[in-house]
Amino acid sequence: MPRFAQIRGRIASLCDNPPMTTPPDDLLLREEREDRESIEDERVTTVEDLLDAGDAEGAAETLADLRPSEVAYVLEHLTESEVAEVVHQMDADMVADVIEFAQPQTRSDIVQALDADQLTDALTDVPDDVAADIVQDLDAEAAATAMDRLPEERRQEIESLLTYAEDTAGGRMTGQVITVAPHLTVSDTVRQLRETAADADRPFYLYVTDEHRQLLGVLNLRALLTARADTPITEVMRGDVLSVEADTDQEEAARLLARNHLLALPVVDPHGRLLGTITSDDLLDVLEEEASEDMYRMAGVHEEEDLSDVWDSIRHRLPWLTVNLVTALAAAWVVAAFETTVEQVAILAAFLPVIGGQGGNAGIQTLTIIVRSMALGRIGLRDTGHLVWHELRVGLLLGFSTGLLVGLIAYAWQGNVWLGGVVMFALTMNVTVGVISGVLIPMLLQRFRQDPALSGGIWLTTATDLSGFFAFLGTAAFLVDRLTDQ
Amino acid sequence: MPRFAQIRGRIASLCDNPPMTTPPDDLLLREEREDRESIEDERVTTVEDLLDAGDAEGAAETLADLRPSEVAYVLEHLTESEVAEVVHQMDADMVADVIEFAQPQTRSDIVQALDADQLTDALTDVPDDVAADIVQDLDAEAAATAMDRLPEERRQEIESLLTYAEDTAGGRMTGQVITVAPHLTVSDTVRQLRETAADADRPFYLYVTDEHRQLLGVLNLRALLTARADTPITEVMRGDVLSVEADTDQEEAARLLARNHLLALPVVDPHGRLLGTITSDDLLDVLEEEASEDMYRMAGVHEEEDLSDVWDSIRHRLPWLTVNLVTALAAAWVVAAFETTVEQVAILAAFLPVIGGQGGNAGIQTLTIIVRSMALGRIGLRDTGHLVWHELRVGLLLGFSTGLLVGLIAYAWQGNVWLGGVVMFALTMNVTVGVISGVLIPMLLQRFRQDPALSGGIWLTTATDLSGFFAFLGTAAFLVDRLTDQ
Repeated sequence: MPRFAQIRGRIASLCDNPPMTTPPDDLLLREEREDRESIEDERVTTVEDLLDAGDAEGAAETLADLRPSEVAYVLEHLTESEVAEVVHQMDADMVADVIEFAQPQTRSDIVQALDADQLTDALTDVPDDVAADIVQDLDAEAAATAMDRLPEERRQEIESLLTYAEDTAGGRMTGQVITVAPHLTVSDTVRQLRETAADADRPFYLYVTDEHRQLLGVLNLRALLTARADTPITEVMRGDVLSVEADTDQEEAARLLARNHLLALPVVDPHGRLLGTITSDDLLDVLEEEASEDMYRMAGVHEEEDLSDVWDSIRHRLPWLTVNLVTALAAAWVVAAFETTVEQVAILAAFLPVIGGQGGNAGIQTLTIIVRSMALGRIGLRDTGHLVWHELRVGLLLGFSTGLLVGLIAYAWQGNVWLGGVVMFALTMNVTVGVISGVLIPMLLQRFRQDPALSGGIWLTTATDLSGFFAFLGTAAFLVDRLTDQ
Repeated sequence: MPRFAQIRGRIASLCDNPPMTTPPDDLLLREEREDRESIEDERVTTVEDLLDAGDAEGAAETLADLRPSEVAYVLEHLTESEVAEVVHQMDADMVADVIEFAQPQTRSDIVQALDADQLTDALTDVPDDVAADIVQDLDAEAAATAMDRLPEERRQEIESLLTYAEDTAGGRMTGQVITVAPHLTVSDTVRQLRETAADADRPFYLYVTDEHRQLLGVLNLRALLTARADTPITEVMRGDVLSVEADTDQEEAARLLARNHLLALPVVDPHGRLLGTITSDDLLDVLEEEASEDMYRMAGVHEEEDLSDVWDSIRHRLPWLTVNLVTALAAAWVVAAFETTVEQVAILAAFLPVIGGQGGNAGIQTLTIIVRSMALGRIGLRDTGHLVWHELRVGLLLGFSTGLLVGLIAYAWQGNVWLGGVVMFALTMNVTVGVISGVLIPMLLQRFRQDPALSGGIWLTTATDLSGFFAFLGTAAFLVDRLTDQ
């Protein structure tokens, strides 16, 4: 960032006070991160050693002083049976806290390790959205038993969240929101807030709702603190609240929240009645998951693959590799159709991977940009024409420049100018096909309501292999006399 | 999710009240999203039409009723000159708001369009971190002029943020935090909060600092509202505050915040003095950017590529395509070394893309999982041995099963059992090389302190092409008599 450095230079000279810290370099950042990681790794090792020595109690004690998120990190690095051993020695409050902060797989390991009483405690102590996740993770019978043991009110709280699909705003929300009636004053509200203190873990916003829970406005605590005590609440609230319906896709909700720089978003039913809220820390996870999903889908892998289980890896990867095989065999068939040409000019075989690979890589570049930009909502179906026109020009120029280079190399190497020409032509064409496919494949998937990332990489390399080999070997067959003419 | 469906069935029968909304299906979600998108697109079209008709004032009026984030969305879809036309007709407050919510490219377009007075207004009205971004975006001279026009206090605020690199916690933080002294009571603090009302836009947390700005504790507004007026602030604050240093990498800060389910994180200097805070909505952008960066780097593209500028696309993509070309030529050289073998058994050429492609795709699957899991902090260098062992077994099994299939097809097709055997052997080996390279390439990049995603795809296909072709053609050359023996 030369521009930034310039400014910084100038600022430093303008400043009365020298900057308190010097700008970091990459090395420092990495070292700091590695320090943090090595502390975390050490904790894992300590706990593993204690468990190996049969001292589960000692392991639990070691963890007792850490933050719940740190304990969660350690448990994430243990095996399922190790998790069970430690969890049995931890006290109920800590278990509930750790469940809240653990990743889904570890959360499920912990829940499996709990006995009926511990499970009831956990379902009572965790936030309602976490409780709903736990119930969803149990099998039907265990879930029913666990729910039966809960007090009526808590059961209803959890049940009402279970009606929404996991990947929607409803599936991510907490129902534990604070609502106030529109006829109250500021001091009434503060009094109410004191009385209901235990009900919501993060009451940064209060929502004003009428007797039908219709959402009327939002109020931040700051406004309550700074307004006069007898001000009607409707005067300090902000109306025109941005909200989402419960069945809104979680990614959509996350982007709406991010785009509007909000920390929480109310979730309403189709009639505008308040159901709950989702907060930005929950949505951080959503955006991470969605980004992983896109990356994984492009490569034809599954985000839930368990890297410690060989059969799980094979089960998740083999299907798309088999699809890839079928498409590769199609490419093989194209080459086989030109078997006589290859027999006559065997050096053609050497250029097949260059032409296929270059077209494929150029296409993957475009595909990556398009899939990600679609995911971020920056481009959509309506941009197809414009993007194809852009890529057509980019592809011709990229293809021609690399094609010319390889053509010259082929000429210099084999001493046949026609070979150079055929290589140049095929490369130019194939890079162009690649980049245009990079636009069209995700757009077509989107058009037919599929995920634009869905194994785009495999479709794309099929397109480039087929078209590249056909163009290259077809032209070569046509010019075979010139090519054998050394 | 069969398990989820089961539970839902049970819950529905348990429930006193039927669920208020029915669980959505994918189609519904997409339709809702498309509705939102089509409203947004319509606004863009309306504004474009008005600008085409020369009615910039009308365009600005249309936008005046929207939320700043919605105006930002419209501007993001206009050309630079269209943005300038509209911005000239918008009032200063709206301009400042829109700058805050716009994406970097559009933000820069807006800033370029402002005259000196408008720029001064904008730098005064936006939050300090946005102001610092604006100054960084200007060239050195314009930045100096703009800074000179600001009041001393504001200038210092902005300058203190400019001392941190953009991709660190310091570069992302706002310095506008509310601090209170430890000797105050709750009522003192509320009074102070009323007096300084204008200073911070999102005061969800208050920080307790001593006279040297040493961070002592954190206080949420909820505690202030519910505690008795004469309680000392140190009794309601929480000590042991999680914080980051200013030079912490932004991604590291984002993950720390996400993992601890926080909405804001204080930023301190090496002596623990409070410098500012970063909030989770800012970090949503960070995680999005980092995910994009990883995807883009794996494919060898750049996240700042401008899809409306052909030369910009070429400039960003050509370098890695050229690297790819060099590696592809190395593969070509391997094939050329076996030219006589190919001349004798031309059908070998048809299997080259199958062997290269299958190894490459299997490797990309692993590479994607490894790069993403490293980015999410789930695996690190210390897992290398364990992962290689996992992938070795996965690779052998995936390779053997697909190799057997293609081997049988080759035998059936060409009637030569030796050809089938050679294909099977080469595929098994190459898939194994691919998946192991998928672990080793990112681990080596990390070991040498490079980004593990850095063009991993290109290195990987080089590895699989070279090893696959060598194994396949080498074995074929050795068995050439058997292969020509129909």
